[in-house]
Amino acid sequence: MNIRLSKLVTKTKKDAPRDEAAKNAQLLIRAGFIHKDSAGVYAMLPLGLAVLNKIIAIIRDEMDQLGSQELLMTSLQRRELWEKTDRWSDEQVDVWFKSKLKNDTEVGLAWSHEEQMTEMMRNFVSSYRDLPCSIYQFQNKLRNETRAKSGIMRTREFIMKDLYSFARSDAEHDVFYKDMSDAYVRIFDRLGIGEWTYMTWASGGAFAEFSHEFQTITDAGEDIIYIHKGKKIAINEEVMTDEVMATVGVKREELEQVKAAEVGNIFNLGTTKSVPLELNFTDEDGKVKPVVMGSYGIGPARVMGVIVERYADEKGLVWPANIAPADVHLVRLGDDPAVVKAADKLFEDLKSAGKDVLYDDRDESVGRKFADADLIGVPVRLTVSKRTLEQESVELKHRNQADEKMMKISDVITVLK
Amino acid sequence: MNIRLSKLVTKTKKDAPRDEAAKNAQLLIRAGFIHKDSAGVYAMLPLGLAVLNKIIAIIRDEMDQLGSQELLMTSLQRRELWEKTDRWSDEQVDVWFKSKLKNDTEVGLAWSHEEQMTEMMRNFVSSYRDLPCSIYQFQNKLRNETRAKSGIMRTREFIMKDLYSFARSDAEHDVFYKDMSDAYVRIFDRLGIGEWTYMTWASGGAFAEFSHEFQTITDAGEDIIYIHKGKKIAINEEVMTDEVMATVGVKREELEQVKAAEVGNIFNLGTTKSVPLELNFTDEDGKVKPVVMGSYGIGPARVMGVIVERYADEKGLVWPANIAPADVHLVRLGDDPAVVKAADKLFEDLKSAGKDVLYDDRDESVGRKFADADLIGVPVRLTVSKRTLEQESVELKHRNQADEKMMKISDVITVLK
Repeated sequence: MNIRLSKLVTKTKKDAPRDEAAKNAQLLIRAGFIHKDSAGVYAMLPLGLAVLNKIIAIIRDEMDQLGSQELLMTSLQRRELWEKTDRWSDEQVDVWFKSKLKNDTEVGLAWSHEEQMTEMMRNFVSSYRDLPCSIYQFQNKLRNETRAKSGIMRTREFIMKDLYSFARSDAEHDVFYKDMSDAYVRIFDRLGIGEWTYMTWASGGAFAEFSHEFQTITDAGEDIIYIHKGKKIAINEEVMTDEVMATVGVKREELEQVKAAEVGNIFNLGTTKSVPLELNFTDEDGKVKPVVMGSYGIGPARVMGVIVERYADEKGLVWPANIAPADVHLVRLGDDPAVVKAADKLFEDLKSAGKDVLYDDRDESVGRKFADADLIGVPVRLTVSKRTLEQESVELKHRNQADEKMMKISDVITVLK
Repeated sequence: MNIRLSKLVTKTKKDAPRDEAAKNAQLLIRAGFIHKDSAGVYAMLPLGLAVLNKIIAIIRDEMDQLGSQELLMTSLQRRELWEKTDRWSDEQVDVWFKSKLKNDTEVGLAWSHEEQMTEMMRNFVSSYRDLPCSIYQFQNKLRNETRAKSGIMRTREFIMKDLYSFARSDAEHDVFYKDMSDAYVRIFDRLGIGEWTYMTWASGGAFAEFSHEFQTITDAGEDIIYIHKGKKIAINEEVMTDEVMATVGVKREELEQVKAAEVGNIFNLGTTKSVPLELNFTDEDGKVKPVVMGSYGIGPARVMGVIVERYADEKGLVWPANIAPADVHLVRLGDDPAVVKAADKLFEDLKSAGKDVLYDDRDESVGRKFADADLIGVPVRLTVSKRTLEQESVELKHRNQADEKMMKISDVITVLK
């Protein structure tokens, strides 16, 4: 985002709320990226929304490249739909929030969308010619988590990218599943956590023998996984058996146990949804068959939390350039008219060059300004002061490097491009 | 959006669901823009989401131009917050959906955000230097409507743009309120309904003597208003008294009674939220004062419904160019290799020229293709066939005009720009 900090609605804080245990939420609250409403319920403030939207844009780009089509389903869910797949009762699914219409009809608030998507697609899939296809959304999920203690990594409410694929056969499904797992690898690379993110064999739950999670190594994670660095593959502790190691083709002694956080998952649903919800198609051979489905999730805010955990240092947030709330944090020191003029001009020039700039034009001390720049974590800090102007320069500092250096003002635009 | 209709997940339908009474929803369902899940609950399919996103982009642009900052609050609401303003009980607010956390704590699903926004701002407003400011969001509202019968114009779930302003004094508030009402006029102009949209004096509810609604004349509306065409102002039936006519400066005989649909509203909240929720600031004179607030809503999907009602004809949807799901509906007739080649090339050329194109490359009859183009309602239809190619031409038809005309293929890009 482009803004003068004197105009920014939010402010940095010295302290996080006492009841906030997670590093990611502590820093994001202090830096003014999120607001904690209650346990597991966080609002995205302007800086946080800017980061979230950049993460969403990267995910959307990869989904669109696979030819998937975006739509937006509803939070309100009909009971009868979920009863058909035996996922309505609180015994079967323990994260439901439920409510009632005025006429006492019970409704659910969506924690996922397999059932609604499957039923909706009955309107559009009837022949083999309608397949394969896939649809996705970024939609606000509500999950009644018993505990919420990992900051924005596990919340009661969050936007989720959920994609659903529809295929004519297991073989056709497998092709898409592979394309999607490749897309997930690209997404986490672009988000700056590819190096630490492992496609991980995990339990398939009610649907299949296995699912695949994308797990990012971090001490803040809630899972234990066993990674194979050479093959860039892992096994979740929950399915870590000799049999699974044989299936994956790894040996116990090659694996390393680490803590990790799930940043994405892909599920082979088979026909477990299409059979009870009657999503069928007539194949080329004239036979009516159930559609083979998959579901593929990523929680952009959870990914944001993991990125904070991986990159932040003792001074604050550190954002990878791809998803930073701005490209440049421009600091003006003092209110000497020449300094104000030069900094204002640089702000405009950077914007004209297509850069997003947080411009610290506030009447604050040097210490406070630099501390805030470190806390907010924009990749590049540029400082304009009387001292730098004497050399017709600005001071340049990268957030992830210790040293500053002087640079001619006339070179700034060229160098930052 | 840019897509080949052979790949589009949705399909047009001959009939709308029998239980759908509203023209807007009937047409949008038949054309594949929305999916009806249950009464008052509609999903946005790819074509519908494309329109909705264009409406949202126009509103966002106008809010940003006023210097307002976007954020995203939560659907989950704490009971104690709304009790402070006496808006928790179902007697006071009859559209709540409520649910419970695992520990039996009651939570609400947001139907509006005054309370949460006001409390959140206590973190960032303490001095007169922090004011004035405003924040807004596009957020999914849930409202437990008893009846839902106006299609997407009144639903149980919808994205709302809600903006909240914070000022030091009534005078400062009034300046922003005027700026915002001017922005609303620009928005409805850009959305193609400015001509029929009147700023309307309405009840201020619990907050103030009056509020202002933006009402668009349409037979599908739920309100009766009295319009003054010369002054481009109106009075809602609910406050239509001699006293109000005097305040507005109009006479009964100058007014015309019409049916209208509310497409936006702006509220002077005064200090009715800041006092109970203790959002105060220290003024320049050292005195602690409550912040003066306003709230400003627009429901993009409701606006979409009103646009459908105003523009659609007996053949289907008719979109204003600004918010159409695509710029061009390209129809290929037949599968002669030369026709396929020419149409494919035109599809690519139009995309390269920055146009969004629905490309009907399906194996369907001329009648079906033209009927679908009319139903979907993209402003410009281009047809490529053997016959048009004999003249190195395409046939051009505007959705809102009766006549077709031939145009040289080599001229298409220039003319459409």
